[in-house]
Amino acid sequence: MDTLNADARLIIAASEVDSDLFYATRFLAPDPFVFLWHGAEKILLMSDLEVDRARAQAAVDLVLSFRVYEERARARGSEHPSLVETLHELLAERGVRSVLVPGSFPLEHGDDLRERGITVQWKRAPFFEERLVKSPDEVDAITAALRRTEAALERAIAAIRQADVCEGILWWQGERLTSERMKGLITMTLLEAGLIAERTIVACGAQGCDPHNQGSGPLRAGQPIIIDVFPRDTESRYFADITRTVVKGAASETLRRMYRAVLAGQECAFAEIRAGAAGDAIHSHVQETLQACGFETGERDGHMQGFFHGTGHGLGLDIHELPRIAKMPTTLQSGNVVTVEPGLYYREEGGIRIEDVVVVTETGCRNLTRYPKCLEV
Amino acid sequence: MDTLNADARLIIAASEVDSDLFYATRFLAPDPFVFLWHGAEKILLMSDLEVDRARAQAAVDLVLSFRVYEERARARGSEHPSLVETLHELLAERGVRSVLVPGSFPLEHGDDLRERGITVQWKRAPFFEERLVKSPDEVDAITAALRRTEAALERAIAAIRQADVCEGILWWQGERLTSERMKGLITMTLLEAGLIAERTIVACGAQGCDPHNQGSGPLRAGQPIIIDVFPRDTESRYFADITRTVVKGAASETLRRMYRAVLAGQECAFAEIRAGAAGDAIHSHVQETLQACGFETGERDGHMQGFFHGTGHGLGLDIHELPRIAKMPTTLQSGNVVTVEPGLYYREEGGIRIEDVVVVTETGCRNLTRYPKCLEV
Repeated sequence: MDTLNADARLIIAASEVDSDLFYATRFLAPDPFVFLWHGAEKILLMSDLEVDRARAQAAVDLVLSFRVYEERARARGSEHPSLVETLHELLAERGVRSVLVPGSFPLEHGDDLRERGITVQWKRAPFFEERLVKSPDEVDAITAALRRTEAALERAIAAIRQADVCEGILWWQGERLTSERMKGLITMTLLEAGLIAERTIVACGAQGCDPHNQGSGPLRAGQPIIIDVFPRDTESRYFADITRTVVKGAASETLRRMYRAVLAGQECAFAEIRAGAAGDAIHSHVQETLQACGFETGERDGHMQGFFHGTGHGLGLDIHELPRIAKMPTTLQSGNVVTVEPGLYYREEGGIRIEDVVVVTETGCRNLTRYPKCLEV
Repeated sequence: MDTLNADARLIIAASEVDSDLFYATRFLAPDPFVFLWHGAEKILLMSDLEVDRARAQAAVDLVLSFRVYEERARARGSEHPSLVETLHELLAERGVRSVLVPGSFPLEHGDDLRERGITVQWKRAPFFEERLVKSPDEVDAITAALRRTEAALERAIAAIRQADVCEGILWWQGERLTSERMKGLITMTLLEAGLIAERTIVACGAQGCDPHNQGSGPLRAGQPIIIDVFPRDTESRYFADITRTVVKGAASETLRRMYRAVLAGQECAFAEIRAGAAGDAIHSHVQETLQACGFETGERDGHMQGFFHGTGHGLGLDIHELPRIAKMPTTLQSGNVVTVEPGLYYREEGGIRIEDVVVVTETGCRNLTRYPKCLEV
């Protein structure tokens, strides 16, 4: 259903959660509003609450008052016109009989529009193909977010470096160094730098085997500590994403081998990423690299262990966007910005993950991440 | 299309942005996953990345592996099964032929399911009626968030109180007191208390006339400063929401009259809110109260001025949820938690808004907000 010959493109969403809408309008609002891209004209239909701000801030051609069209629907006899009834007044005025919407378009509005005789076609993500190809400004925004994220990461890793070990537990500045304390340190440092971090991961030992476990409790020497930070720049709205794994003190030989294998997996991806490369092939080769290093993937004791997530994902206005370097077929394009984040997870050892962000070029890729990789601190 | 006789209820969303899904599962995840409520059984279909965490954390009866069902779809000949193809294996296994989904359900999945012969009915918000009626625990969570938000607000208003005025501009601790600085102070204070605030408003003078203008630049004496803070508790996920308007130094007689009118509007709502009351009637009476105080609403110089937003909105896991106290008909229920936030906005004077949060009871309402209301500081 990816037919593109509709009269207009339509999004109804809150741009604070719908990045396609923010991308198309550069206007941020907490409540759903209507965006219609008709011919060359980008049109917004805004409530009284937002209409002035939209006129001042939105990168569109025309901002119309929702109230005006709502009154027209009311004049037609609808006492409390629904959003779609009001929108239908605008579509009728412009002679729009068919719309192309994102796959995420609300079924409720889709059915309502169809009931009014509008042909509604949807397009699977990406709705705007151009969002996958980052402009130099977008790459700069991601890079700027990364630099400040690296500074916060360094502050956290410095705490581990400076920590004392007492009975296997890390102590720093007179208190136990916990996941919670580390996350607080990272979040506050980022906020001072204008970034909002949520769900930061500081997972020690077995906690790290669950790649989305955010971690809790005291950090321990000799165990891998996964630190995964992915904040959003509150100004630009672009994300950074970085993961490092460190061990306080000496790591076991197995952990060192795991770390080297993950690094090799990353290098394998770096070597293959270029415009035209197949993301799924790269992911397979990363899997093979880890396996060649002696690390198997599969269910063990009722849990998936080894390397059981994707190699990477697109990064931009969303933390997870296309293209993904994973099982699903995809072809990389110059200008894609993707993470490269292989990992290995075994219950008895803990988890190792290392994540950088690269921009795809015609001949390879450029690593936007600068933070060094070192297991033992 | 609010038929409720479907075989099962279905949500496909990321619980980090879909509060219905979080409400039903108490499981927080950044990427979309499948929730099926079949008979008495709450079922999740989770990727390898999340399955262990879901089994440990989700308040559901059964967590199934997405991979297992995906493999079945593959065994049926689909090389890269879509989400719906995989889900369809589960529906077939359970004999589910019809599903009820939220109005926000992705059109893409709705059409895909229908193409596979599944009857898909949607329900307008609220998907879970019970979400509107807050349990004592939920009221406690909102109250706890409010208390900490009031502390942050007090820190900000104290800065205005302590500020010196030089040529009409506020100075505090040796620097100009700007909207940005105030917002930073509020955000940092809240973060230390475990709340994340975004889009905090500190809007001085004419900026306040655009109710969603976040404000920028130096604060000025004698002008109204709207401070609207609505952070989310990172632990409980519940929101607080409070607005106060203050003037540094003496306010004009007009501003004082506006302030008194807004207070009267709030008192009107407090007096009428109770189980069974009509939200739209309350909103009309608030409008009439403001008008009776001499403050008209309407378009002037091409901008809406006066009182042109709703009186209040539900508050909970979303910042804006049902019920709304506004133009649309609604009946309040005991246990609703709603904001009461009339305002007046005139270009030449600036904006005044005062917002509290109340819980609706059988006989009236209980104000959860404690922060005092005082125009001049």
